Amino acid sequence: MPNEPIGHRVWAVAEGYIPTWSTGPEPEMLSHDTVCLLNTGTEPAQVHITVYYSDRDPAGPYRVTVDGRRTKHVRFNDLTDPEPVPPGTDYAFVVESDRPIVVQYTRLDSRQAENALLSTMAFPVTGS
Amino acid sequence: MPNEPIGHRVWAVAEGYIPTWSTGPEPEMLSHDTVCLLNTGTEPAQVHITVYYSDRDPAGPYRVTVDGRRTKHVRFNDLTDPEPVPPGTDYAFVVESDRPIVVQYTRLDSRQAENALLSTMAFPVTGS
Amino acid sequence: MPNEPIGHRVWAVAEGYIPTWSTGPEPEMLSHDTVCLLNTGTEPAQVHITVYYSDRDPAGPYRVTVDGRRTKHVRFNDLTDPEPVPPGTDYAFVVESDRPIVVQYTRLDSRQAENALLSTMAFPVTGS
Amino acid sequence: MPNEPIGHRVWAVAEGYIPTWSTGPEPEMLSHDTVCLLNTGTEPAQVHITVYYSDRDPAGPYRVTVDGRRTKHVRFNDLTDPEPVPPGTDYAFVVESDRPIVVQYTRLDSRQAENALLSTMAFPVTGS
Repeated sequence: MPNEPIGHRVWAVAEGYIPTWSTGPEPEMLSHDTVCLLNTGTEPAQVHITVYYSDRDPAGPYRVTVDGRRTKHVRFNDLTDPEPVPPGTDYAFVVESDRPIVVQYTRLDSRQAENALLSTMAFPVTGS
Repeated sequence: MPNEPIGHRVWAVAEGYIPTWSTGPEPEMLSHDTVCLLNTGTEPAQVHITVYYSDRDPAGPYRVTVDGRRTKHVRFNDLTDPEPVPPGTDYAFVVESDRPIVVQYTRLDSRQAENALLSTMAFPVTGS
Repeated sequence: MPNEPIGHRVWAVAEGYIPTWSTGPEPEMLSHDTVCLLNTGTEPAQVHITVYYSDRDPAGPYRVTVDGRRTKHVRFNDLTDPEPVPPGTDYAFVVESDRPIVVQYTRLDSRQAENALLSTMAFPVTGS
Repeated sequence: MPNEPIGHRVWAVAEGYIPTWSTGPEPEMLSHDTVCLLNTGTEPAQVHITVYYSDRDPAGPYRVTVDGRRTKHVRFNDLTDPEPVPPGTDYAFVVESDRPIVVQYTRLDSRQAENALLSTMAFPVTGS
């Protein structure tokens, strides 16, 4: 187990999109956009997420705490404060943390009868 | 929200391919190849995309503006100037911006009845 | 063929999830979460995997040996020592090796009749 | 269009797997594992691919030329010299080029009636 926090403090993802409908049993098969946060350090990480749109000002910050030596998988579908992220809308997001973390982005799309998946590590901002 | 532009000025993607047919309701389920651009800075970013092929000279530049604090998701299917990107053809592309941006590549393939997805961060060119 | 070991000694993945059911012939179509390890060096690499959860302390180390000039694709479904990784549970993981290796993460999800795939290179920890 | 070659000379991918069967019209829907190479320079790049297995010595080099300002998408299914890459077998690979290139890995899996896709940038070896 690593002895110190792994990762960066700022990460970016250029593609976000919550599919507008779903097929199959919930909650597993509900279409969702997820940001996965890993905090390998021993102290809690305070995380701010800013959501960017194509035609309006950014929304946020969405505040998330990731406890030490824990992971948290956050569905954008579930964010409500300061405002929901609308489905069927192009967005992007930046994750800022007060401690180094690792960030990954995953979507499950069940609009058609069989689900589809995508995932990528977020872009780690150098020097952060 | 970050105070300065995040990312790089040059990014590359080695795989592009617009599926040649689709299944399901448009526009959501139209097969498409998308490049997602995020500009966290306050000034607009002027972006040039060059498309590389296996058997002919590159095409471009395709010009896109991404306003400050905005994201833009560009479907290669929709590019027409200086020329369309032909479906069913292997390609690759380079994104050049006058300001730092973040670039990601995503495909939705609905050639068969159920859609498939892929996504990856583009390759950030160091020093750019 | 490279003359020296390629990669890093520490890698992280923020998203892990073993789908809770499967459709189709096993073992190919069994839903699985896989970490793929490549050791291009000539000596065996001793690898420790630590699994992080959202609501309990990390588990591990899971010990894997990757022989020189070999790859090993490890399904989390198959790990039992020191304890199984429960399906249907959010997790994340860190890979630590005594020699440089390359690490990639792939999931095959066959919960619905047609399978879905995701894959991403793990996050390489700089300086490791 | 970039004025100089973009990328690295050595790239690695830890996961390779050619699905053992396919569903749908060929060649589009034939299951395949693809490495995508982009050469933005003006001179041809001479590329060597080494394939690593879990239980035998590496195979290769597989030799590929990517002309200047061209992309080449190589299906592992099509490699025969010095030997075919067997389907249904875990592998990994390293790409070495005499000039900087960009490398990405994509799989189309059509074993079940609807296809699945994955893609990731390869791991760029620093200093190469």
